[in-house]
Amino acid sequence: MIPSNGLCVGLDVDLEKIPLHLRGRADAIVAFNEAIIGATRHVAACFKINLAFYEQYGKAGIDALYATRELCGSAYVIADAKRGDIGNTSSAYAKAVFDDLNADAVTVSPYMGSDSVEPFLAVPNRMIYVLALTSNTGSHDFQRCVVDGAPLYERVMRTALAWKRKADIGFVVGATHAAELAGLRASFPDVPFLVPGVGLQGGDAATIRAANGAGPAVFNVSRGLLYMDESENFTSTVRAEAERLAGLLA
Amino acid sequence: MIPSNGLCVGLDVDLEKIPLHLRGRADAIVAFNEAIIGATRHVAACFKINLAFYEQYGKAGIDALYATRELCGSAYVIADAKRGDIGNTSSAYAKAVFDDLNADAVTVSPYMGSDSVEPFLAVPNRMIYVLALTSNTGSHDFQRCVVDGAPLYERVMRTALAWKRKADIGFVVGATHAAELAGLRASFPDVPFLVPGVGLQGGDAATIRAANGAGPAVFNVSRGLLYMDESENFTSTVRAEAERLAGLLA
Repeated sequence: MIPSNGLCVGLDVDLEKIPLHLRGRADAIVAFNEAIIGATRHVAACFKINLAFYEQYGKAGIDALYATRELCGSAYVIADAKRGDIGNTSSAYAKAVFDDLNADAVTVSPYMGSDSVEPFLAVPNRMIYVLALTSNTGSHDFQRCVVDGAPLYERVMRTALAWKRKADIGFVVGATHAAELAGLRASFPDVPFLVPGVGLQGGDAATIRAANGAGPAVFNVSRGLLYMDESENFTSTVRAEAERLAGLLA
Repeated sequence: MIPSNGLCVGLDVDLEKIPLHLRGRADAIVAFNEAIIGATRHVAACFKINLAFYEQYGKAGIDALYATRELCGSAYVIADAKRGDIGNTSSAYAKAVFDDLNADAVTVSPYMGSDSVEPFLAVPNRMIYVLALTSNTGSHDFQRCVVDGAPLYERVMRTALAWKRKADIGFVVGATHAAELAGLRASFPDVPFLVPGVGLQGGDAATIRAANGAGPAVFNVSRGLLYMDESENFTSTVRAEAERLAGLLA
């Protein structure tokens, strides 16, 4: 199952940035996410839940993670986990994100190779987004290393596309690399991309949407959408911005 | 803080492999780990808790993860998490493993580069083990890709050693690559290594110990130690094997 093209809303919760009236509440994470999901689900192609932002709050954060997944209901949910380990360990991670958390898609790191991704790829009706060219500055350290005349991220994509799978496969390509995105889209016209980094990380919505062209892609916005307004009326601000971004990214 | 050289006991819990009398108990994970820790701590240089094996059991697994960390007490604890994300997200992961879980060390993936590892490296008195050459077959897919005449895993090590840090830094080098371990030890005589893959993955304890020579290293054994005996007397079996392995790996 491949998510519809368009806006992906990243539920990266940060208790120091949420509206003032919610701070200090025991259910702050869930209350905030419920408001964000309610204000954006009519235009969101999918939601992305980055596990780090929940794990940072310990056991209470994990409770909020599961509650947030429930709040997404029938919407398409990407577990942004960037997991990857030896085979039997990745099987345990696949169980965690698919069986327990009931995510539709997951992000995985390719560094450990085929058997570290296979347990995710073995699950039918899910989407596995493998990290290729990420949105951060560190993407220059290893992902662009030249291997046999091409960047490592391209080697990762060509190799991973040949792996046996029951799940669908796609790649993470950061919105901060518009030229490379356009090039990858020309090489891989039908491969799904998850494009993070629109907004505060520097990716311009209209530019990156144009660079992607007609291929299947979801464009993630997190901080640039969630923390625009600290007032009690934050949902109207978030709703309007989500509609604007969804229009640009459709 | 660098762990003492020797045996690392990997607490990779699998409820389908624990002794028969513990299966089905609500506190099975914690009861099993308590027995394993008790039977090995007199010879273990450290314990390694792989988060996947706890996450696979959902919220109850996370409770067991925290309880297991408590049971380790003052022993040196490595959180085997293989995390790595953009800067602000890796900061959240660092908070989770260090502030919440109170681990002494963590494993991280280098694929996303400098800013994905920096938040871990910024924490004093901890050890960051960066994945270099892992123990699994997939390590041949990308880690051995040749970049400027040397394998990517070596590029990762040389690059990471130059990163600014308050924490200590070390690398994961799998026990299934004895020749490469010996070569890396010659190039990096004083850099700490975490060497997984002794036992069921194929790494021979005496061979790998010899390949490492005098450098700082801990050698992890998980399944090959934990699941030797399904009987009620499993702790005697585990204790004897841990003592034998610790002797070989000291």
